[in-house]
Amino acid sequence: MAENQTLTIRFGIIGCADIARKVSRGIALAPNATVIAVASRDVEKARRFIAVNALPEGTVAHGSYEALLDDESVDAVYLPLPTSLHVRWAVAAAEKGKHVLLEKPTALCVADLDGILGACEANGVQFMDSTMWMHHPRTAKMKELLCNSDLFGQIRSINSIFTFSANQEFLKNDIRVKPDLDALGALGDVGWYCIRAILWAVDYELPKTAVALQGPVLNEVGVIMACGSSLIWEDGKVATFHCSFLANLTMELFVLGSKGTLHLGDFVIPYEESSAAFTVASDSGFKELVTGWNPLPSKHVVTTELPQETRMVREFARLVSSIKSSGSKPESSWPAITRKTQLVLDAVKASIDKGFEPVEIGS
Amino acid sequence: MAENQTLTIRFGIIGCADIARKVSRGIALAPNATVIAVASRDVEKARRFIAVNALPEGTVAHGSYEALLDDESVDAVYLPLPTSLHVRWAVAAAEKGKHVLLEKPTALCVADLDGILGACEANGVQFMDSTMWMHHPRTAKMKELLCNSDLFGQIRSINSIFTFSANQEFLKNDIRVKPDLDALGALGDVGWYCIRAILWAVDYELPKTAVALQGPVLNEVGVIMACGSSLIWEDGKVATFHCSFLANLTMELFVLGSKGTLHLGDFVIPYEESSAAFTVASDSGFKELVTGWNPLPSKHVVTTELPQETRMVREFARLVSSIKSSGSKPESSWPAITRKTQLVLDAVKASIDKGFEPVEIGS
Repeated sequence: MAENQTLTIRFGIIGCADIARKVSRGIALAPNATVIAVASRDVEKARRFIAVNALPEGTVAHGSYEALLDDESVDAVYLPLPTSLHVRWAVAAAEKGKHVLLEKPTALCVADLDGILGACEANGVQFMDSTMWMHHPRTAKMKELLCNSDLFGQIRSINSIFTFSANQEFLKNDIRVKPDLDALGALGDVGWYCIRAILWAVDYELPKTAVALQGPVLNEVGVIMACGSSLIWEDGKVATFHCSFLANLTMELFVLGSKGTLHLGDFVIPYEESSAAFTVASDSGFKELVTGWNPLPSKHVVTTELPQETRMVREFARLVSSIKSSGSKPESSWPAITRKTQLVLDAVKASIDKGFEPVEIGS
Repeated sequence: MAENQTLTIRFGIIGCADIARKVSRGIALAPNATVIAVASRDVEKARRFIAVNALPEGTVAHGSYEALLDDESVDAVYLPLPTSLHVRWAVAAAEKGKHVLLEKPTALCVADLDGILGACEANGVQFMDSTMWMHHPRTAKMKELLCNSDLFGQIRSINSIFTFSANQEFLKNDIRVKPDLDALGALGDVGWYCIRAILWAVDYELPKTAVALQGPVLNEVGVIMACGSSLIWEDGKVATFHCSFLANLTMELFVLGSKGTLHLGDFVIPYEESSAAFTVASDSGFKELVTGWNPLPSKHVVTTELPQETRMVREFARLVSSIKSSGSKPESSWPAITRKTQLVLDAVKASIDKGFEPVEIGS
């Protein structure tokens, strides 16, 4: 059998969502992965997807998700389906021994997610959610600075924003406004990233309580178009986030420590693909007579040869390869992070549903 | 009588707080104002302040606040006293016919503020609070962009942060940690700016409700060291802010509109005195396959010859001059803005005191 690093993981893509175009390019650019099959309930749609996105010659178009899962040559699936279909198809994939790279939000609630994670664990397949920015080298660099207590001190508060301005067509017809498809709306689609960023900043220590902010916007069928929440930790740390389909594209992350401040304005999708920046300030103060700041915040730039989605695929494929070639166990930290994100998301949703009451975050 | 523009307004400074050093320089740099007297309960302290800050020759040191208010040559007073003393001395100043430039937070509650504003109105003197950033030319430039609905659309949400990391000496002995001096603590000292910025962004339309965020930090005598709040408007706009003495110096303002985003990281004290920047994004979107942003946010720089505190003094002195030389009435927009800021501050404080219950904002 080949060494770990020489295995090329063969992906099947289930569903031809827009995001699958970006991820299929991400897979194509990964040194250890390739797309070999695409499934749609309409085989013509799968064929068009393969052609339009210039997938490798020989990529098979399947006319049903089952057919792709029965394809023995597929090692792993990437699932960009509407959230309401995740349980069914992620579980089915795991049961067929396929490793699962699942689009976010991963599930409608943690009970559903537990069904997926249980199936992955029972079948010994790797699970990872498709939160790409986690894999950008900027993320590791920022974490290194946050962990430097001389520079940053203790984390006091975190604030995150992810909004975009959906057009009328989206607000009427997109799956993310439909209660039977992506019932979590903006909270699931963009709030997911805010919650993940907050958890990332605190090394995934779960907050004790979520209190949703008053004034969420729901559409006429009750799906969240905009909302926010505060999160409170046992030790006094606090966080807030705001997510929306109704405001100009904005993705901000602030982490405030007793000694330092981290800020970036493009945490989910970097402004540019090949390099990304963030700002750090430490021991910030004023000049004499408070006529300006000294020191000023400083900008750090991190370059990357591979786009963040390719780095995600590469990491996922590396883990799959390790399982396949040397029988190692699936890496449990990825599903653990997913589950914590979902737990917080569930609590925020529950707080909105309960009229902004504090909701204890489950475990 | 001289023309409006040729009158030089003669200031008396009541109290020798640190901030008075900055403002006395601000007055010295203003073309239409000068300091002629300084009062402290200890006349030696007033003399030292005059010497150390190189105030004009002939500046009189008074050993009591009353003596300064009895000084007929003083046109206007700048009051940087602890908040709990504002009512007494601002009212006394107004009753002596002195125009009042009052340090923030202006009062412990709106009832106290109303006492001050009533005395100013009854005596025909100008009132202005000392919120310096309001007078930076950047502020007017940002407002112009916010009002451009093609660029910005409708305001959806606002987020503001002002924190600094107080040292142990401050946390033990500063007037801002003492319930009998500046009982509003961080909410009054730095939250004031957050609230003002939020109101500024929405043209001073009062929110309907304040809901304080859970997890404020109080010191052992109950003064706020860190807190936050959400604010909700009738029409669906929302805002949050976070203020603290316990996190690295950070001052952020985000205004999100349906079409645009405004951001600046130094809204209270610009990084540099002579120029200040902000970032605007409009119709932000992604490149093909979401590999980056297009267009990118753009940075705007606004230069200023005079520091913002001098521009504040110049504007205040211009209004005083107009009252003195041509008998015009005091400008009512400044006290109106102060009062709205205090109303919101009071509501946030009440919400904290009531265990984070929603509090309707008064009028």
